[in-house]
Amino acid sequence: MATHKRGKCSFQPRHPPVITAWSSIAGKKESEGPLRDWFDHWNTDTYFGEPSWEKAECRMQELALESLLKKAGKTPKDIDLVFSGDLLNQCISSSFALRNTGLPALGLYGACSTMAESLLLSAMAVSGGFAERAVAMTSSHFATSERQYRYPLGYGGQRPPTAQWTTTGSGAALVCATGSGPKIEAATIGTIRDLGITDANNMGAAMAPAAVETLIQHFEDLHRSPEDYDLIVTGDLGAVGREIVLEQFRLQGVPLGDNYNDCGLLLFDRQRQDVHSGGSGCGCSAIVLCGYLLEQMRFGKIKHLLFCGTGALLSPTSVQQGESIPGVCHAVSITMEEE
Amino acid sequence: MATHKRGKCSFQPRHPPVITAWSSIAGKKESEGPLRDWFDHWNTDTYFGEPSWEKAECRMQELALESLLKKAGKTPKDIDLVFSGDLLNQCISSSFALRNTGLPALGLYGACSTMAESLLLSAMAVSGGFAERAVAMTSSHFATSERQYRYPLGYGGQRPPTAQWTTTGSGAALVCATGSGPKIEAATIGTIRDLGITDANNMGAAMAPAAVETLIQHFEDLHRSPEDYDLIVTGDLGAVGREIVLEQFRLQGVPLGDNYNDCGLLLFDRQRQDVHSGGSGCGCSAIVLCGYLLEQMRFGKIKHLLFCGTGALLSPTSVQQGESIPGVCHAVSITMEEE
Repeated sequence: MATHKRGKCSFQPRHPPVITAWSSIAGKKESEGPLRDWFDHWNTDTYFGEPSWEKAECRMQELALESLLKKAGKTPKDIDLVFSGDLLNQCISSSFALRNTGLPALGLYGACSTMAESLLLSAMAVSGGFAERAVAMTSSHFATSERQYRYPLGYGGQRPPTAQWTTTGSGAALVCATGSGPKIEAATIGTIRDLGITDANNMGAAMAPAAVETLIQHFEDLHRSPEDYDLIVTGDLGAVGREIVLEQFRLQGVPLGDNYNDCGLLLFDRQRQDVHSGGSGCGCSAIVLCGYLLEQMRFGKIKHLLFCGTGALLSPTSVQQGESIPGVCHAVSITMEEE
Repeated sequence: MATHKRGKCSFQPRHPPVITAWSSIAGKKESEGPLRDWFDHWNTDTYFGEPSWEKAECRMQELALESLLKKAGKTPKDIDLVFSGDLLNQCISSSFALRNTGLPALGLYGACSTMAESLLLSAMAVSGGFAERAVAMTSSHFATSERQYRYPLGYGGQRPPTAQWTTTGSGAALVCATGSGPKIEAATIGTIRDLGITDANNMGAAMAPAAVETLIQHFEDLHRSPEDYDLIVTGDLGAVGREIVLEQFRLQGVPLGDNYNDCGLLLFDRQRQDVHSGGSGCGCSAIVLCGYLLEQMRFGKIKHLLFCGTGALLSPTSVQQGESIPGVCHAVSITMEEE
């Protein structure tokens, strides 16, 4: 049997699947940031025509899927499988967006790493011969997250400088066995790391150890180094978490250079938009990838991208019970090079 | 490239992976039921030595993994990948059980279908050549579910006859490329169905349409009929949902016979144990499969098993916002026959 496994945690498909289409839906604040021109659709309020923020988040996933199929020239009947998840309790945005569509659906929970998790599972399903076309999809919404994880919106609590701003947005990618576009040529599945951070307003610090570990594992498993990539992005550590990653790599003598950035920093203008440490939420890395980065690859501005989804695996209950915050990071290597 | 895909929603691995070991951890009530003698461990209270029910649920997953590795004669280093999820907000039982174990982890959300979802993804990863050994794992806990989805335990609310009893338990299965044991020879990935049931105390009725659809799709995709299986089990529709499935099949002229049962009915003695419509929760189908059913296969009492995990994809928020309850069902065909 053909094996795609490489090293301890990585795999390299022998026939790399192709991301033939992608779509991105953004909220109001996101459409006022530096990536404004790259999104397919945005909304001037946070409701997307729905009566609640939770329904609005679900609507964003429906719009992301519609937009994806339209751009790819496909119908739901052409899709074999959807991998999706989100931050809401019981992942309702994802489940409700797919109900009665007739699409085979596998639900995920990877917190803000969901875009990377869904992409790598789509790559596995397609390159393993279990599906011809799979969709990877996720979303988040500032208002649904804020009231679920933190405070009612009307409370107006003050946010500390380490806090991140949950993105209102949804991204989707179509992963196919054949076609043209960026290819998923390798991926590294992360382990769950917890170094004891207990401050739920400092997710960047909680997730950074997982990001460092997955990056090092990726380089080791595939015999690579940071210079093999034009761009390495984490999503989303923000400014605080990014500094920790840079410092850890400096300490290990393998400095990450200008080719390392974070989706939470790319999405917003931190000074002007008052997002403190940067963007966060499943939707952040999703719309940065499915809005901006994959377009950059299509235009040849990025040839080799290492997309590292990072998730903080806490819940309000775990925090209230005094638990620290575990993090996870999954890395997906995307290339425009031909084999 | 070798394709394993069959029909619209199914796949059949060309080299069926083997379930070489399984483990089950049960709570107090579960260990007082008819399957008592089949579980690896049980606890005489609901705390498993922990200070909260949530930590107890996490502890059950740790115990299930420890027991699984011990029975298989393996260490964590031998495991390539873990697929797990649970019912708690942000799936904390699963994430916390795996933190700092060094095990590559992919989180799932499939509600009570998680055992089937994790099994079919493990089969995909192993038979596709992405992992040599994968663990499929899940849990649920009566007290954590009750207070998260319904009422505080001390409230003592009266339960209607259609209500099910969330199982306290955790099950795990080791899926390997080689070895001896029951084989995963096919699987059908479900779609999300919502026929408008809004009663959160009648999950069986909410999930039954998804179960019917997945079963019919399974038979169609693989050109099979119900008689091809010694046992078809859903998990967990309870008595109410099981009746709906039987009626729907009668109406379609393809009667399900005595070979159809439900994990929620197998786990408890409904009359004596006051569980109303039957058991539910990710842990129900998990410990019925990884305690009782796989042992029956090992002893030759069941040759062909169709294990159908059913999940109700609601949240308290979706119910409060007036939404109906979508359901999903994934089917995994397990055989003792040699190829």
